[in-house]
Amino acid sequence: MLTANSDLQLGLDLVGVFVFALSGGLVAVRARLDLVGVVVLAWVAGLGGGMIRDVLIGDTPPVGVSDWRLMLAACVAGLITFALHPRVERIARLVRVLDAAGLAVFAVSGAMKAVLFSVAPVTAAVVGVITAVGGGLLRDVIVGQVPAVLRNELYAVPALLGSVVIVVAARLEHLTSLVVWAAVVLVFAVRMAAVVLDLNAPQPLRTGDPS
Amino acid sequence: MLTANSDLQLGLDLVGVFVFALSGGLVAVRARLDLVGVVVLAWVAGLGGGMIRDVLIGDTPPVGVSDWRLMLAACVAGLITFALHPRVERIARLVRVLDAAGLAVFAVSGAMKAVLFSVAPVTAAVVGVITAVGGGLLRDVIVGQVPAVLRNELYAVPALLGSVVIVVAARLEHLTSLVVWAAVVLVFAVRMAAVVLDLNAPQPLRTGDPS
Amino acid sequence: MLTANSDLQLGLDLVGVFVFALSGGLVAVRARLDLVGVVVLAWVAGLGGGMIRDVLIGDTPPVGVSDWRLMLAACVAGLITFALHPRVERIARLVRVLDAAGLAVFAVSGAMKAVLFSVAPVTAAVVGVITAVGGGLLRDVIVGQVPAVLRNELYAVPALLGSVVIVVAARLEHLTSLVVWAAVVLVFAVRMAAVVLDLNAPQPLRTGDPS
Repeated sequence: MLTANSDLQLGLDLVGVFVFALSGGLVAVRARLDLVGVVVLAWVAGLGGGMIRDVLIGDTPPVGVSDWRLMLAACVAGLITFALHPRVERIARLVRVLDAAGLAVFAVSGAMKAVLFSVAPVTAAVVGVITAVGGGLLRDVIVGQVPAVLRNELYAVPALLGSVVIVVAARLEHLTSLVVWAAVVLVFAVRMAAVVLDLNAPQPLRTGDPS
Repeated sequence: MLTANSDLQLGLDLVGVFVFALSGGLVAVRARLDLVGVVVLAWVAGLGGGMIRDVLIGDTPPVGVSDWRLMLAACVAGLITFALHPRVERIARLVRVLDAAGLAVFAVSGAMKAVLFSVAPVTAAVVGVITAVGGGLLRDVIVGQVPAVLRNELYAVPALLGSVVIVVAARLEHLTSLVVWAAVVLVFAVRMAAVVLDLNAPQPLRTGDPS
Repeated sequence: MLTANSDLQLGLDLVGVFVFALSGGLVAVRARLDLVGVVVLAWVAGLGGGMIRDVLIGDTPPVGVSDWRLMLAACVAGLITFALHPRVERIARLVRVLDAAGLAVFAVSGAMKAVLFSVAPVTAAVVGVITAVGGGLLRDVIVGQVPAVLRNELYAVPALLGSVVIVVAARLEHLTSLVVWAAVVLVFAVRMAAVVLDLNAPQPLRTGDPS
């Protein structure tokens, strides 16, 4: 049943790579990188999560250096951001929506690939989350920013939800296209709710910090 | 003889993961990360070194995403830090002692695992050090700090000592429990001596720096 | 034909590791790291690109932790920088020339190794570039600087050129020593031209940035 989803998985991945690569390009432009930096950061943001996933589950070389369709999608997104970044900035709201879509498809497709590689369920769930947030984390670390995913906003949590849905469904041998789409919609909806309602993960209590 | 040590290795790893994850949680709280960030940084600090080790020796998926006991230990340490960080800060001195214990067990168990994978002796020694210092290095890089291990204090040096003891003992086919414990105590003692006596690795000479 | 080049590949790698490790040592000294930090950063700069390459193509353990000749070259470069950094600084111009040589040999030897592992041509080309620029990127990220390779100057572009030459020659079954040397000279010449003529990759247009 899973194999029948391989076209679906490619489609999901292409969308995710493209929108994440846009975010990487925007961060690069703001950090005043040059054309090489913009394309590299688009590639890192779009394909870094999948590359960490593939290295962790032992599927080398990872798609980020082997699948020319995904690499092309990331490069095109980088070039678009480079050429048109003022316009891309102007649609920042749309980019946030697209980013939520990218988060959704990456969490789901990452968990699906891990399941396909027969790793333990807990591993597949964690790998799904890493696929979804790893690219953005690398993107931020490379330009010297504390990763957005660790600072505020519910970002990793919806990814974990979707990842768990996939793993449980696979466990129950019920990983149908319907379940896959439901998981994608779930992640997207929770993430958009967090954006719209400005939901954040709890912060540690401030203390009369002596340092 | 080594296989008989697998329980010992798990025990060492659990202790090391827990105390290193506490350090990750503290760094995250100080960097004002949210709950997700605190748990992620606890996981990175506690399991990052072991994940680099496993990727380098080709044992995928690495324990950091596959061994639920170690992952649970890291998460619990993260949650404890999140909830009780003022108290954890107050016992900073104890945390330093625990951290020395973590360094000791990670260097030793990292080198033991590398030996078990039949890598060359020099590789096993280096991999032991990477296991011990890699998590802290990733922890610091993610929050944008120059890694403490590279700046001052003897930290990597005791790890290298313990790692070499394990490798040499394995070479001589004498890797008994006694040797393992002696190596752990050696790393711990040298590290604590460095803390107490404020021993540092040499610094480069300052120059009339023109920059 | 490729196998006959294995001595050549080792020679290229030794040169590349040594000069890149010098650059790592210099960055470490400027960032006020201690002796451990200087040696670690020399090792990261000299062997990090090759380690990423090996992990990506699945050749573990990577040469950066298994080939004692390369590790020794990196350590010696680190110790030399630590002891003699004012003099190394004074020959900064020469170091830039050597760095161009390192870039050339790493791009070529990285692509050659990837070809040897029978990865797809596009993968081999990208892996060659990663081999050449990965160590410098890790070096800069660890000390909290935005990687030089992403900011300005033509650095990745000549590496890509040389990498593509190797991949195309291998495709045409024409990967002779002559082609290898021609590729090395090409990368070196383009990089030196970029340094001398101060050629840069294009920058994104500044905008009346509203943020």
